Amino acid sequence: MENILLVLTYIAVTASAISGSLEARKHEMDIVGAVTIAFVTAFGGGTVRDLLLGRTPIFWVVDPWLSIVTFIVAIISFYWLDRISEKYLNIPDAIGLGLFSILGVTYALQFEVSAIVAVLMGVITGVFGGVLRDLLCNRIPNVFRQSTELYATCSFTGSWVFILLTWAHLNDLIAAMIGAATIFILRLLAIRFKMTLPSP
Amino acid sequence: MENILLVLTYIAVTASAISGSLEARKHEMDIVGAVTIAFVTAFGGGTVRDLLLGRTPIFWVVDPWLSIVTFIVAIISFYWLDRISEKYLNIPDAIGLGLFSILGVTYALQFEVSAIVAVLMGVITGVFGGVLRDLLCNRIPNVFRQSTELYATCSFTGSWVFILLTWAHLNDLIAAMIGAATIFILRLLAIRFKMTLPSP
Amino acid sequence: MENILLVLTYIAVTASAISGSLEARKHEMDIVGAVTIAFVTAFGGGTVRDLLLGRTPIFWVVDPWLSIVTFIVAIISFYWLDRISEKYLNIPDAIGLGLFSILGVTYALQFEVSAIVAVLMGVITGVFGGVLRDLLCNRIPNVFRQSTELYATCSFTGSWVFILLTWAHLNDLIAAMIGAATIFILRLLAIRFKMTLPSP
Repeated sequence: MENILLVLTYIAVTASAISGSLEARKHEMDIVGAVTIAFVTAFGGGTVRDLLLGRTPIFWVVDPWLSIVTFIVAIISFYWLDRISEKYLNIPDAIGLGLFSILGVTYALQFEVSAIVAVLMGVITGVFGGVLRDLLCNRIPNVFRQSTELYATCSFTGSWVFILLTWAHLNDLIAAMIGAATIFILRLLAIRFKMTLPSP
Repeated sequence: MENILLVLTYIAVTASAISGSLEARKHEMDIVGAVTIAFVTAFGGGTVRDLLLGRTPIFWVVDPWLSIVTFIVAIISFYWLDRISEKYLNIPDAIGLGLFSILGVTYALQFEVSAIVAVLMGVITGVFGGVLRDLLCNRIPNVFRQSTELYATCSFTGSWVFILLTWAHLNDLIAAMIGAATIFILRLLAIRFKMTLPSP
Repeated sequence: MENILLVLTYIAVTASAISGSLEARKHEMDIVGAVTIAFVTAFGGGTVRDLLLGRTPIFWVVDPWLSIVTFIVAIISFYWLDRISEKYLNIPDAIGLGLFSILGVTYALQFEVSAIVAVLMGVITGVFGGVLRDLLCNRIPNVFRQSTELYATCSFTGSWVFILLTWAHLNDLIAAMIGAATIFILRLLAIRFKMTLPSP
């Protein structure tokens, strides 16, 4: 199990780093920009969560391998990756959204916060990397746009599923897997059927 | 007194959440954007203050009701609130500016920082919610514009009034009330008489 | 030595505050904007580093003189400094880049992080003030642009030089001086010969 989690983490971090690096290239940044945007996309959400909870030093400060992988992936993507179709990034990105959201909720619950705050921490962990990436690229965050398919909403829904299942005394690990799977599947469905939130 | 403070806090948080949510709608965001901007506007200043002082977990992480209220107010404002005249938000916003600035100074002084740093923490608490809101809406923060009526300046002035009164051995609570009232009145006067800061 | 360090720190902080304040004027901000941008430029990098490492209260919260100097320099620059040629700021800015990068690495190593994370903390300390300044001025950070002469790269290189020298059991102080000098000289060479990073 530990090993599966590790593999999934690196898949998700790699996807974030690739998307960040390509985004930087799209904005005519140099490799410094690409590496920074890759780091911000991959670690931004978890960093904000750790800061808000007071979990310092931050998670990537204590694990050099996350930085090394992000660094290398960002450089390779920036210089040698031809424009890849965004759809190849959708699946690893959705893995990351599910995994990191549930991890965020879990860490928050360890600080004995209320359910709503734990869910917010899950959403922040899953979503804020992309928000900070867009901020540094000087545009309104993509997840806030009316035309964007459900993203934060998937994280929000699956985080509640996870919490409700733990309240129902389901085994923590199974609850986490169902929560993460809910997010993953909901996100892919949202892309497939272009599901968006209702406008006012 | 405790009760009055609580009522004032929720008035100010509600005003911030409404203004954030309407701002999001103005920028054609969806409800995810509206809720996020509402949270950032309402809690951004206090969050930055708590992070800088090392007061973690952050204030709203330990009190779920603040999140619940902000969440509900943001959704209602986004979907059902017709454009309301900005002037109706001016008074609750000025209450928040006065209240949160003085709260910020008080918390800072508990960490035994110097007077100037305490005043800066007061200003950050009162003002940075709006700064972060504008940042996420991809524009130069409103409080930095030459055409904006005194805002941070009111917070700065009232925070010094509060500190000087405590130095003069006035009762803490009375000093706080005079400081907050100074900010509140100065802000309303600034709007009424279109008072701005001198340009270079 | 202690005294030299102090003088260099205030030279670098003054240069950052001047550049921040002038940048604010260029974007038609008022004095509130100028003071804020000056603070963000001067203290932003060290603040992000301290937050990530969990070194709170943040460095400038415990030393009022840094705030007082930044405050005064920002006001003077905003109202009375005629447009000064950017080249006069290059040397004090390069001093700051060298000094703060190596300080950042040193603080990080005190938390027993790995070499790569320590170097990242050095770069963040040296560079993120400017990144946050540009963010608040609503533009893509200058250090990420392809046309910008080596900046983060100088900090990155010198930080590694410092760490490699300490690994080679050189005296810490001498290693720090060589590291900072590397950054300082590399930055001035990069400006002089318009050295940029290779594009993809």
